[in-house]
Amino acid sequence: MCGKLQVVTSKASSVSVPEDRDSNGHHHVPLINLDHGDPTMYESYWKEIGQNLSLEIPGFESLSYFSNPKKLCWFLEPKLEDQIKKVHEKVGNAITENRHIIVGTGSSQLILAALFALSTSVNEPNPVSVICRAPYYSSYPEMSDFLKSKLFEWWGDADLFDKDKNEPYIEMVTSPNNPDGTIRQPIVNGPKGMLVHDLAYYWPQYTAITSSADHDVMLFTVSKCTGHAGSRIGWAVVRDENVARKMVKFIEINTIGVSKEAQLRAANILEMISLSCTQPNTRIPNFFKHSRHLMAQRWTKLREAINNNSLFHVAKFPKQYCNFSGEFVETYPAFAWIKCKDGVDCEKVFKGHKILTRSGVRFGCEAEYVRVSMLSRDDEFELFVKRLPTIHVEDANLN
Amino acid sequence: MCGKLQVVTSKASSVSVPEDRDSNGHHHVPLINLDHGDPTMYESYWKEIGQNLSLEIPGFESLSYFSNPKKLCWFLEPKLEDQIKKVHEKVGNAITENRHIIVGTGSSQLILAALFALSTSVNEPNPVSVICRAPYYSSYPEMSDFLKSKLFEWWGDADLFDKDKNEPYIEMVTSPNNPDGTIRQPIVNGPKGMLVHDLAYYWPQYTAITSSADHDVMLFTVSKCTGHAGSRIGWAVVRDENVARKMVKFIEINTIGVSKEAQLRAANILEMISLSCTQPNTRIPNFFKHSRHLMAQRWTKLREAINNNSLFHVAKFPKQYCNFSGEFVETYPAFAWIKCKDGVDCEKVFKGHKILTRSGVRFGCEAEYVRVSMLSRDDEFELFVKRLPTIHVEDANLN
Repeated sequence: MCGKLQVVTSKASSVSVPEDRDSNGHHHVPLINLDHGDPTMYESYWKEIGQNLSLEIPGFESLSYFSNPKKLCWFLEPKLEDQIKKVHEKVGNAITENRHIIVGTGSSQLILAALFALSTSVNEPNPVSVICRAPYYSSYPEMSDFLKSKLFEWWGDADLFDKDKNEPYIEMVTSPNNPDGTIRQPIVNGPKGMLVHDLAYYWPQYTAITSSADHDVMLFTVSKCTGHAGSRIGWAVVRDENVARKMVKFIEINTIGVSKEAQLRAANILEMISLSCTQPNTRIPNFFKHSRHLMAQRWTKLREAINNNSLFHVAKFPKQYCNFSGEFVETYPAFAWIKCKDGVDCEKVFKGHKILTRSGVRFGCEAEYVRVSMLSRDDEFELFVKRLPTIHVEDANLN
Repeated sequence: MCGKLQVVTSKASSVSVPEDRDSNGHHHVPLINLDHGDPTMYESYWKEIGQNLSLEIPGFESLSYFSNPKKLCWFLEPKLEDQIKKVHEKVGNAITENRHIIVGTGSSQLILAALFALSTSVNEPNPVSVICRAPYYSSYPEMSDFLKSKLFEWWGDADLFDKDKNEPYIEMVTSPNNPDGTIRQPIVNGPKGMLVHDLAYYWPQYTAITSSADHDVMLFTVSKCTGHAGSRIGWAVVRDENVARKMVKFIEINTIGVSKEAQLRAANILEMISLSCTQPNTRIPNFFKHSRHLMAQRWTKLREAINNNSLFHVAKFPKQYCNFSGEFVETYPAFAWIKCKDGVDCEKVFKGHKILTRSGVRFGCEAEYVRVSMLSRDDEFELFVKRLPTIHVEDANLN
């Protein structure tokens, strides 16, 4: 499916932008690492909020393994559960009523927990196939296979999966998709299919909130919502109690729960975000509006930077009505999924210009594609868009 | 090996202690849960320290996935690494010089990381056997097998393992041992054996520090050292760089690192503990001395409570010279490993008196044994030792 992207073809450029120079006037080309989706862009917002939002936790608190011993998810801090429900209600991106909320050490742990829970829910002698339409999140294959589990294994591109096999499978539905930002639906729709909706990017700064998602297993993470990737807090919204119990069991065996400090801080952060969306509120800038504005600026700069460069293509996205903002909005994905000219190893071209990206090959596509993080710090992003126009078709031809 | 414990046989009792009564004079027997090793005993110390030891972390800090991008363990906070090394130096229980420190989401994650790293270090078509002498930590079998990995699998009691098979195996050496508090060495010593030393309880409140441990893979956790189980912070001290790299890789795929908040708090807590051991220091009570004193009191009370009860037996431990305290000290394990009279289902007897314990069966032993946490809160422990003398041989005979 990688090739079906709608691409904007730009024209060749004759403009040459000078390299950065250091204080001695020498060429100095600093390395720009946009391989990971490290969401440091959000630091600027949280610096504005400043010390108002410090977590303070005394030495004698949260010693116990347990947060809520009588609940299904016994290690979930009640305050975090409340704030998760509140932010979903405020944003309108997911149904949480009568659903089980499970906290995880990032959504990575929850993906594994879901694979464990779903694959052990079916009575299958062979490992259950894990599939996702390409381009798919580069970690899915590795996460599925690193322990060589007999419960589940990576199969590959869902477009190539034979739905008539009548075997159970787990389809990862990542929407908006990592790496390419597209809105997705399940595509196999086989009789024994199980679905995991990875909704890490279904927040108003990236895309239109078109409905309150209501799927069997939905995964979210503070990393991509608020930028606090270092906290390692994700959550699952799960319909079926047995699946929820098994996911909890996985996290119990894997890490005996999830850091209380991180949960309490995430609860504070989410509370602040919900508060910032409450109108009228003059004290705190609306988090999603602020972040969306930043994303819009970055995407404009990116498109300008490659506008006259025939080497690069980036998809255009249709405008959609966003229930959260109440207006038609553009899509500003957390990653740019850049296609180079046919036959060009795009990652290599960028690397030649000291820009680290992730090759399309890692996402089940051709080497002509790369994924580039749009969530870096301002100075890094500015360097990137400044350097982009200096990369020419000729660089690619040298490969 | 379960039966080889040196046991103290007590005499039959004829004393009957009245049940607790509620304010209306009715019998009221509250449930006492000593199944888990939840270290809430330590709350009292940290309350004494009080607000002096609050972690404060502003909203704009620690957003990135990375703590130390250029280091092997790129998600380890430098301050935590420093404080881990400092506390080991202060206590003298482990060599950390020229070793790799790896932080994990509790030592559970590190056990799995070690199984992954060691099993993928050998080129073996079959799953590598995981073994441990019985009684062994009840979670080892489940942790080894829950994902049905083709890399490693639980084999069982190391005493029954045929070392002449000339196959690779991983022996868990838990010392002091969970559940029985004994000091352990590797026992198979086969040519292709790999060792994981689980030293969660090798701290001065539980046992004599007889030497600075120096093994290939050593695991520790704040849960059992300081009582902060809710933080989910453990660490590994690893000699071999390749093994360390693979452990880091495991944590990267499993949870993309470890919560920064929890790491920063653990660093503060460990710093305070090291400081408390620095003489002369009148401001902060010496943590290990204080905790050892509590453990000693509890063990005295436990032994008194079962002294005249022929139903229960608890091992005695030899006194050993402790380098840390500079004196001969007793052993005060974090769990009491209680043996009932032959043929008695000990967990059932306790359950009949509304005391939850963990059956010896879970540790690879007979149902005559139970593991009882010695680390509960004061009120719970007092209830326990008060109720113990009310349990009689006759209760067991009713089974």
